[in-house]
Amino acid sequence: MNCLLLEPEELEGAEGVVRLDGRRRRHADEILKVREGDTLRVGAVDGLLGRGEITRLDREVLELRVTLEETPPEKLPLQVVLALPRPPVFRRLLSTLASLGAESILVVGTKRTEKSFWNSHVVEREAVRERLLLGLEQAKDTRLPELAFQRYFEPLVEEVLPLRITGRRALLPHPGSPTPCPHAIEEPATVFIGPEGGFLDYEVERLAGIGFEPVALGERVLRVEPVIPLLVGRLFR
Amino acid sequence: MNCLLLEPEELEGAEGVVRLDGRRRRHADEILKVREGDTLRVGAVDGLLGRGEITRLDREVLELRVTLEETPPEKLPLQVVLALPRPPVFRRLLSTLASLGAESILVVGTKRTEKSFWNSHVVEREAVRERLLLGLEQAKDTRLPELAFQRYFEPLVEEVLPLRITGRRALLPHPGSPTPCPHAIEEPATVFIGPEGGFLDYEVERLAGIGFEPVALGERVLRVEPVIPLLVGRLFR
Repeated sequence: MNCLLLEPEELEGAEGVVRLDGRRRRHADEILKVREGDTLRVGAVDGLLGRGEITRLDREVLELRVTLEETPPEKLPLQVVLALPRPPVFRRLLSTLASLGAESILVVGTKRTEKSFWNSHVVEREAVRERLLLGLEQAKDTRLPELAFQRYFEPLVEEVLPLRITGRRALLPHPGSPTPCPHAIEEPATVFIGPEGGFLDYEVERLAGIGFEPVALGERVLRVEPVIPLLVGRLFR
Repeated sequence: MNCLLLEPEELEGAEGVVRLDGRRRRHADEILKVREGDTLRVGAVDGLLGRGEITRLDREVLELRVTLEETPPEKLPLQVVLALPRPPVFRRLLSTLASLGAESILVVGTKRTEKSFWNSHVVEREAVRERLLLGLEQAKDTRLPELAFQRYFEPLVEEVLPLRITGRRALLPHPGSPTPCPHAIEEPATVFIGPEGGFLDYEVERLAGIGFEPVALGERVLRVEPVIPLLVGRLFR
């Protein structure tokens, strides 16, 4: 954690004084090993970055006086459409995507997406939000990426994606495609990351039909987790 | 697993017939759900890729007749120097690095590398080899990256690295460096990935002194796991 995020309601108290508890208190004690008078890097969720001076620290209370004045870093012009992966991978990817600075994440189902994954508690709103916040705290960002779910492929292709990709480069990494993935594009992108088993030919055709370009990332078949940062490194300056 | 790797000694049998057991037998049964007559993609560790036809399949024995004739994919011209990370991260990174096609991995200590990590069984040769093989099987490669350890910083900087980086671009991702990391370089690279807490200024100076260029990957502070594929996407075509 390189920055400690505070909820807007925590910041409503008198003169910017905030009390830390739970996970953040433990982190301050055990990892940062803070003392009274120390200053921590903090931010308001979906707000500004700044500093918090520890004004009281004892067994019961850790109190910070918070000053917020810096704008958070720019987001990448990247929307990710992600076939829901295995729950432990999904948990890690949410934090990774938030730390990389993705604008939005649309979690979808495809034919090869395991149906049971949708029953995991990792897709619940609170669990998702917590993982996104961890990623933001890693990257010293405050702004949550937009997150939505669209489980069924037909309405996804018919209704949701055509609107989302208007005015953007839409890329579909797909092993075996004859077109190599471009480098350092100078425009906003939407990238559709398929399930571990890959897309069906039918799915690739449908997505190509609405404007997705199938692109290859070389001969090697990679897992979803490294593919996402690899694309970020490749596409953006 | 997109390719099943066989050890050279397994391939010494008569007429290329190999028996599968352990992890690979379970994978064939449970994930691939193979039947007699099916053909699997196989490879010889550090050798050729090819196909294995299932000639016998019963409760006791899964027997493959193996034909090897394809060369494995090219390696990336990438050497990674990696400050030993937390053991679960190290396990995953070994597979990721092998799947990405890194030529070599040199695992090192820096001031902020936790000493206790060196006592973990994940640094033992057999554990490392198994994780690398999983990455190769994912990427349909056969050739193990060269792997070495150099725990102490002084001999690393004085003796080991100057030889390793001769004739290569040597990059040191370091937040706050004024030089942005280059894109699509056309030469072999050695990349030094620091520990989660970053390098000390002294370490950056010493490494710059022998030819490493400190480069920044943007304002965001990222974890080691996404940084490696991000660099691969950025540096290579």
